[in-house]
Amino acid sequence: MTTVHRVYNFAPGPAVMPLPVLEEIQRDLLALPGVGMSILEISHRSKTFESILAQAEADIRTLAKIPANYRVLFLQGGPSLQFSMVPMNLLTGGSTADYIDTGSFADKAMKEARKLGTVKVAASTKDDHYSRLPSQSELKLTKGAAYVHMTSNNTIEGTEYTQLPDVGDAPLVCDTTSDMFSRPIDVSRHALVYAGAQKNMGPAGVTVVIIREDLLARSLEKKSSLPTMLNYAVHAENRSLYNTPPTFAVYALGLVMKWLLGRGGLAAMAKVNARKAATLYAEIDRTGFYRGTAQKEDRSLMNVTFRLASEALEKLFITESTAAGLDGLEGHRSVGGMRASIYNAFPEEGVDALVAFMKDFEGKHG
Amino acid sequence: MTTVHRVYNFAPGPAVMPLPVLEEIQRDLLALPGVGMSILEISHRSKTFESILAQAEADIRTLAKIPANYRVLFLQGGPSLQFSMVPMNLLTGGSTADYIDTGSFADKAMKEARKLGTVKVAASTKDDHYSRLPSQSELKLTKGAAYVHMTSNNTIEGTEYTQLPDVGDAPLVCDTTSDMFSRPIDVSRHALVYAGAQKNMGPAGVTVVIIREDLLARSLEKKSSLPTMLNYAVHAENRSLYNTPPTFAVYALGLVMKWLLGRGGLAAMAKVNARKAATLYAEIDRTGFYRGTAQKEDRSLMNVTFRLASEALEKLFITESTAAGLDGLEGHRSVGGMRASIYNAFPEEGVDALVAFMKDFEGKHG
Repeated sequence: MTTVHRVYNFAPGPAVMPLPVLEEIQRDLLALPGVGMSILEISHRSKTFESILAQAEADIRTLAKIPANYRVLFLQGGPSLQFSMVPMNLLTGGSTADYIDTGSFADKAMKEARKLGTVKVAASTKDDHYSRLPSQSELKLTKGAAYVHMTSNNTIEGTEYTQLPDVGDAPLVCDTTSDMFSRPIDVSRHALVYAGAQKNMGPAGVTVVIIREDLLARSLEKKSSLPTMLNYAVHAENRSLYNTPPTFAVYALGLVMKWLLGRGGLAAMAKVNARKAATLYAEIDRTGFYRGTAQKEDRSLMNVTFRLASEALEKLFITESTAAGLDGLEGHRSVGGMRASIYNAFPEEGVDALVAFMKDFEGKHG
Repeated sequence: MTTVHRVYNFAPGPAVMPLPVLEEIQRDLLALPGVGMSILEISHRSKTFESILAQAEADIRTLAKIPANYRVLFLQGGPSLQFSMVPMNLLTGGSTADYIDTGSFADKAMKEARKLGTVKVAASTKDDHYSRLPSQSELKLTKGAAYVHMTSNNTIEGTEYTQLPDVGDAPLVCDTTSDMFSRPIDVSRHALVYAGAQKNMGPAGVTVVIIREDLLARSLEKKSSLPTMLNYAVHAENRSLYNTPPTFAVYALGLVMKWLLGRGGLAAMAKVNARKAATLYAEIDRTGFYRGTAQKEDRSLMNVTFRLASEALEKLFITESTAAGLDGLEGHRSVGGMRASIYNAFPEEGVDALVAFMKDFEGKHG
């Protein structure tokens, strides 16, 4: 294989993929071994694809130790469609859903739910520019809520839960788009978990939903009125094959799951991810030239956000880092500054390269 | 490049892709030229992806001669989600939608619309097992209908419109999933056209919607109640970048569009497709050993459906053809028999190979 020039990609998603996964996709792109067709061409009703789908699910179950009473679904539309599917399926007549507002995407989820039913804000850190997560004592929970919605990692604002909030008996629904599967997850404490694949799990185009079986009763009740494609129970009954699934994205996600297992699973990944983040935050905190934007105890291990003294200096940082082969460090357009997304597949050498660049940049402009 | 064994793939979708497209995807899988990242890794907000998306749209516009007052959207969820999005956006308070029921998918589209508003059956050929299309005189159209929905090619039943029905002033909405872009299309006669990519246009995971701009007013009216992800106007305003699009599927579709342009465009493709279908139907009609299931004047050029004298013989046909490297010839589980899907990328040699096999099979078992 000829050497291919690859940059360090700090993009927040779609994001860097494991190189061995890319190499396997490349090797088999014209024809899967023994099949005579590309993964892009095989029928979703074929034995080959059914086995790819089943293996991806089995590996997800192994990785996250998913209890038997949870279903794993492969859907389309990303977390943005889940913002609507969750209330469509779970917010049944007259009930209230609690939302914990910890960032731009949590807020979007809440706004979509408001179109469909009664929503209460259990807590919000909007007044603090979402620079922190609400404490347990700040949570105002509705008795008998249909569910409580939270966002485990806030991609834009750079915060991440280290402990799940206590929501009592209410079903906990969690948008885990940017931290699944970067660390172990206790699925049994959730009623529903969803994540777009394009951060830690694979390419864009597939969304993983893990749902506790008893919740499917709510979807079944709405079967005659809810659009079929937006009904969790339909996808569960049909094992994600009600219609043509995004076959390639499921295949690629499956290869990433295999890679995660080969790396030692989620506990092993969590160690590497913690090490990468610690290295980067240590540099941010070293002299005061850089300034982390999230409160220290709520800092995300996935999206490291920081600023410089002026926007002009930030602009220069982006220009020079891009030229140095460190790509995608610009913060989200809504908040500015810098953001280094260092998901599962982001290599430790890339973090070291960024730290070296930061030192050098401070030396020149500090 | 080492030689890779590839079979003839008659699957109805996901289906065979052009080999040069697969080869280009394979070549650039680790890093797009000059970008240093795989297409699976690049941000949807990057200049690279924005240019891939814009080029795909420009090529679609060129191929189908799309008038300037139509928008081209790249969505997720396949035609099955369009079955709901169409009435959600277009069936406004109190109005009626007319549906032409020509097959299993047309029927599904109608059932989804019924959940959301008033639907009338303009015509149905269900009593004829969908073996034919309704004539113009059979159409019962509602005055002032919100739209008329039709399915231009019926993948399961093997029928295809050669002329659009006359629906007067009503906006015509067409599910073109299995014939776009196999032949020229007069977009100006439609109000909305939608198609899953996985037949003639690319891999599964992206849906193309072409919508006349004036219809977006209906979506805008519903902005406060309609889920954002299901609102055509939102996707049009954001040029298909409201949320993370299925980046890889859009890229692959773009390469197929380039391939179509290189083959001479839709008129040239139509000639090749007509020739392939004529060869196959001639063999079906030659002796009476094979029996076409669709009425001759409504036969599909994309999905050629036929039967044998007994189910036992059909089973044998499937077993022996699969062993001969002719894959995916089994008819849909709901209708049985055989189906040869011969989309744009299906090679003429594959049709010749099937005809030779059919002659041989008749010789042995006729």
